[in-house]
Amino acid sequence: MIIVMEKGADKTDLDAVEQKIVELGYQPHVIYGETRNVVGAVGEERGKEKLQILQSMRGVENVVPILKPYKLASLEVQPEPSAVEIVPGLAVGGKEFVVVAGPCAVEGREQICETAEAVKKSGARALRGGAYKPRTSPYSFQGMEEDGLKLLAEARDLTGLPIVTEVVNPRDVELVAKYADVMQVGARNTQNFALLKMLGQLDKPILLKRGMSTTIQEFLMSAEYVLSEGNRRVILCERGIRTFETATRNTLDISAVPVLKQQTHLPVMIDPSHATGHASLIAPMSYAAAAAGADGIIVEVHPHPEKAASDGPQSLRPEAFDSMMMQLRKFAEVAGRIMAE
Amino acid sequence: MIIVMEKGADKTDLDAVEQKIVELGYQPHVIYGETRNVVGAVGEERGKEKLQILQSMRGVENVVPILKPYKLASLEVQPEPSAVEIVPGLAVGGKEFVVVAGPCAVEGREQICETAEAVKKSGARALRGGAYKPRTSPYSFQGMEEDGLKLLAEARDLTGLPIVTEVVNPRDVELVAKYADVMQVGARNTQNFALLKMLGQLDKPILLKRGMSTTIQEFLMSAEYVLSEGNRRVILCERGIRTFETATRNTLDISAVPVLKQQTHLPVMIDPSHATGHASLIAPMSYAAAAAGADGIIVEVHPHPEKAASDGPQSLRPEAFDSMMMQLRKFAEVAGRIMAE
Amino acid sequence: MIIVMEKGADKTDLDAVEQKIVELGYQPHVIYGETRNVVGAVGEERGKEKLQILQSMRGVENVVPILKPYKLASLEVQPEPSAVEIVPGLAVGGKEFVVVAGPCAVEGREQICETAEAVKKSGARALRGGAYKPRTSPYSFQGMEEDGLKLLAEARDLTGLPIVTEVVNPRDVELVAKYADVMQVGARNTQNFALLKMLGQLDKPILLKRGMSTTIQEFLMSAEYVLSEGNRRVILCERGIRTFETATRNTLDISAVPVLKQQTHLPVMIDPSHATGHASLIAPMSYAAAAAGADGIIVEVHPHPEKAASDGPQSLRPEAFDSMMMQLRKFAEVAGRIMAE
Amino acid sequence: MIIVMEKGADKTDLDAVEQKIVELGYQPHVIYGETRNVVGAVGEERGKEKLQILQSMRGVENVVPILKPYKLASLEVQPEPSAVEIVPGLAVGGKEFVVVAGPCAVEGREQICETAEAVKKSGARALRGGAYKPRTSPYSFQGMEEDGLKLLAEARDLTGLPIVTEVVNPRDVELVAKYADVMQVGARNTQNFALLKMLGQLDKPILLKRGMSTTIQEFLMSAEYVLSEGNRRVILCERGIRTFETATRNTLDISAVPVLKQQTHLPVMIDPSHATGHASLIAPMSYAAAAAGADGIIVEVHPHPEKAASDGPQSLRPEAFDSMMMQLRKFAEVAGRIMAE
Repeated sequence: MIIVMEKGADKTDLDAVEQKIVELGYQPHVIYGETRNVVGAVGEERGKEKLQILQSMRGVENVVPILKPYKLASLEVQPEPSAVEIVPGLAVGGKEFVVVAGPCAVEGREQICETAEAVKKSGARALRGGAYKPRTSPYSFQGMEEDGLKLLAEARDLTGLPIVTEVVNPRDVELVAKYADVMQVGARNTQNFALLKMLGQLDKPILLKRGMSTTIQEFLMSAEYVLSEGNRRVILCERGIRTFETATRNTLDISAVPVLKQQTHLPVMIDPSHATGHASLIAPMSYAAAAAGADGIIVEVHPHPEKAASDGPQSLRPEAFDSMMMQLRKFAEVAGRIMAE
Repeated sequence: MIIVMEKGADKTDLDAVEQKIVELGYQPHVIYGETRNVVGAVGEERGKEKLQILQSMRGVENVVPILKPYKLASLEVQPEPSAVEIVPGLAVGGKEFVVVAGPCAVEGREQICETAEAVKKSGARALRGGAYKPRTSPYSFQGMEEDGLKLLAEARDLTGLPIVTEVVNPRDVELVAKYADVMQVGARNTQNFALLKMLGQLDKPILLKRGMSTTIQEFLMSAEYVLSEGNRRVILCERGIRTFETATRNTLDISAVPVLKQQTHLPVMIDPSHATGHASLIAPMSYAAAAAGADGIIVEVHPHPEKAASDGPQSLRPEAFDSMMMQLRKFAEVAGRIMAE
Repeated sequence: MIIVMEKGADKTDLDAVEQKIVELGYQPHVIYGETRNVVGAVGEERGKEKLQILQSMRGVENVVPILKPYKLASLEVQPEPSAVEIVPGLAVGGKEFVVVAGPCAVEGREQICETAEAVKKSGARALRGGAYKPRTSPYSFQGMEEDGLKLLAEARDLTGLPIVTEVVNPRDVELVAKYADVMQVGARNTQNFALLKMLGQLDKPILLKRGMSTTIQEFLMSAEYVLSEGNRRVILCERGIRTFETATRNTLDISAVPVLKQQTHLPVMIDPSHATGHASLIAPMSYAAAAAGADGIIVEVHPHPEKAASDGPQSLRPEAFDSMMMQLRKFAEVAGRIMAE
Repeated sequence: MIIVMEKGADKTDLDAVEQKIVELGYQPHVIYGETRNVVGAVGEERGKEKLQILQSMRGVENVVPILKPYKLASLEVQPEPSAVEIVPGLAVGGKEFVVVAGPCAVEGREQICETAEAVKKSGARALRGGAYKPRTSPYSFQGMEEDGLKLLAEARDLTGLPIVTEVVNPRDVELVAKYADVMQVGARNTQNFALLKMLGQLDKPILLKRGMSTTIQEFLMSAEYVLSEGNRRVILCERGIRTFETATRNTLDISAVPVLKQQTHLPVMIDPSHATGHASLIAPMSYAAAAAGADGIIVEVHPHPEKAASDGPQSLRPEAFDSMMMQLRKFAEVAGRIMAE
């Protein structure tokens, strides 16, 4: 922490700040400037945020943190990228560019099985589908719940594709974990710390989506909640942030991929469907994701978007998904990745 | 819903859209324009969002909702402002401008009791204090939990002030409800629908904070989650939204007060502490809140901000709170409100 | 400037940074930390931004500015608030809460004179009206140009109200200055530095609006452009920033008032019309502005909003303006200000 | 335009709205709904924004535009992509993926010539370099002005690379046009309509950057300013928008590429340097741009970033640029483009 003193602060103010730093267990180190003084606080990183309270002291203009507050997610603790295994033979964050596909919500046996077979044929490596849906309106379809989970399991039996599905309530963690291969945390729950802590005690990979207004640093702190409880299998997923632009549902922050890669060993996926909200934008954004160095994508595919119970306008038809996959494979290869046939 | 057809859409496209609207239970009504046609869908409001899937049809450029999706929160259902009773003799949304004050987190008996007595003396009508703290970092102080709730109850016994405290986990709703007079939902949980549904089944007032990136319409939809489960005692609270500006912690959207008043009968409070993040900005923003027509404020007061376990820099000292209250009373009076002595 | 070294940086890196700081004319001062080192650069404030290039050096993680880059606008140079005189007997930033009112655009003699007389009667102290209009679309009404300026001058002759009007092109500065009492810089030109430099050479007060996405620090740097050319009569005006919220045209950042007051001696006004975009929100936001400590407001009034060539929906009718003024006067008084009868 | 009536609006209100629509030269067309009525206004698109004033009428809840306000930039007027010729044999928007490179600012003969030769060798097709710099601070380096233009011309003579350079003041348009092959409009001038109108009368290609808070629709309206004055050679350039995220200087909105391609025939470039602010992010964002379907990039290269007068931290060294170009060529090829050797 760097404590910036006001221009008019006097020696008494400075002494008080130094003393307080000592009380808090750090060593003060003053730089005497031409117009004002600055104090560095040297010591153990963990817990340094408590120095923020110096802001309330007389003569203090600003307290500036200079270190990243996360640890287990950082490259300093683990400099090599993590490959998160989903099932034997399938990992996110390694050599393979992994595509997860499926409908927004599970709506029935035929719909989920038909989709699972179609996306598998095109090269998807896991099936997505929501059984619990966090919807803005209480009057919208809220998901098939456990019945939906059972249908996902049927689709897995049929195709061999592992299942990625969302959990929204700490109460349901155990139940969802009985069926899911990957537990997804949606954008509205990125900072649902009660949920994150429970997921940290699970032996399952977690797909953690970035919230609509979560900074990259906060996003990594949310990952840290899971990691610090013992679960090291966290996959990050950028899915668009909220900005002033209304032409897209959200603004896909593709630069989050290289920024995260410079700060964390955790794998990074992109969700182009929720980010853009338009089926016609999914292919170009998936190509951009592969080119920017992402480890995979998670994308919405529905056999009949015009009948979908949710998110129809942003779902690809299986044919469109199939032709996208052929082009995506080429971009992934240039990026040094492989994709399953 | 208004369905805007593309310029190049032909009669087949238009017929298909009309037929689909009929299938979904609405009456299509075409306006033939000079450059393109537009179709209105007439019928029951509730459930109209399913018309969004027309967006996937050939020849459709855009589907524009024209109606508000919330109902119980709206002025159309209840044109008169609701006064939400907290305890007998104290309601938010009536004649009184209500001030809730207290520390960010409960830290100990002396701290909470000392604060409660001080804020009561200055005119606060309820005590705030967190026993469960949603913190960005897993390494930060997470609250005293049930011990904190017990101390809040002691402070209530001592001063008679009702208690406003946050619940973050659906699992804890019952426990927190045993102690709290008002259940607070924080900004990170505005769209934690699992939590909102449980609170909707409670017979306690809910103080619902707006999320950092929640639109006003989404905010009202979150209130609708509570209302539609049967609990009609919802108090809305604006606490700053996330913008590009970094001079303040968030940007306090004071215009949300009159905007909400034009759309809902629910009372609206302002939290100037979390919105600004600086103690020195609390007084002017509280005055602005009263002048803009808010029903009250919720504000952080700590006897020793420099020792606070969280949010020290944005907490007022009791003396500062007291002098703010004297000036606030005058603004509230001009706004046609009264404040307790 | 504080230069934060990477965890893995070695002595050679540190030496190179120290040497570079010396080359640039500053004294390096190293704090040896437990996990990484930090270097302070001590010396002349002005010009310190050139130290940013240290960011490109090996072993440097971050360069953190700790000082404000503006000078003439700062309280450090002038600790007392500036009162900017518009005409003898009328100043913004002193004891008086100043109301400027008038139509968005000058549309004709009758319109501008009728408005001028009405707003004067209600207590406005200056007349606003645009002769040059920066419009998003080239097909929208662009203003009456010099004819509009002449009509403004007629309205001034008629009522005695000084004129506030916008200039958008450096080429027109001289012409507009022939008629205007205050030169307004609109939100799209806040960082039009060519225009600001010319206005800095003028002997006229400048009403400088904050841009839609201008930070407070950038806003003060734009003021500094005018001040550093010699013109010390700058009035700042907050008019809403662009956020994700669409219920209002922009989000009025009322907290900008106390934030600016803590950093600059320049007066601060609020424009509630452009900020909100709705006539019904102008009164509550004007009251909030007065309560928060603003020095005045600039507001759109049009005798027939439904006939206005621009911004009709956000213009007050004279009757609504008049009743707002009566209530506004009471809030201004509580805030320690006076308003002309 | 669609005029949404309030729930409580009566027949008189509706009649008045219909009559006003007729007065304004359109045909009203009422849809009688279950809860409220809606009126469509049919007629000439151009000028429809004047219907917005209906918002001020009694009984009107909302006025919703359904058509795009730009025309010459739209695919409806020209359905095929435009290839904008810069010099014979070089066009943006055709088969070639065009790379423009060079320093942020021209600083001297050696710097600009050395850079020009280096970037040419790596495959750049045009040279960028600023002679007029819009800087946030009046105390920062403001550019070499005409001397800088002359040095750019020398570098062009030396290498044959055409020159892209910024103009910031309408007064300088003629002078800059004497030297430049492409006139650049920077992000702070996207809505400097006085400048755009002058550039619309020029016979030179214009590189128009998107503003930090300009929506895609406003961006196209700014292009329309140039086009409607007669200059059809406009190249759009996305360079990052301002959001809450601080890890990057701005948030590069890569989805703007396919969104623009669906709305306009104008070519679209990406500026990864200003968007991200970090040299290490330029390569991945350039690859993403090519994959998403952009027509080219404009990127900052400086032989000695640590000595740059501006934007050093976001400039690539020539070696880094060269290796990026090799990889970029492969991505461009997969995207169906060619790049010069």
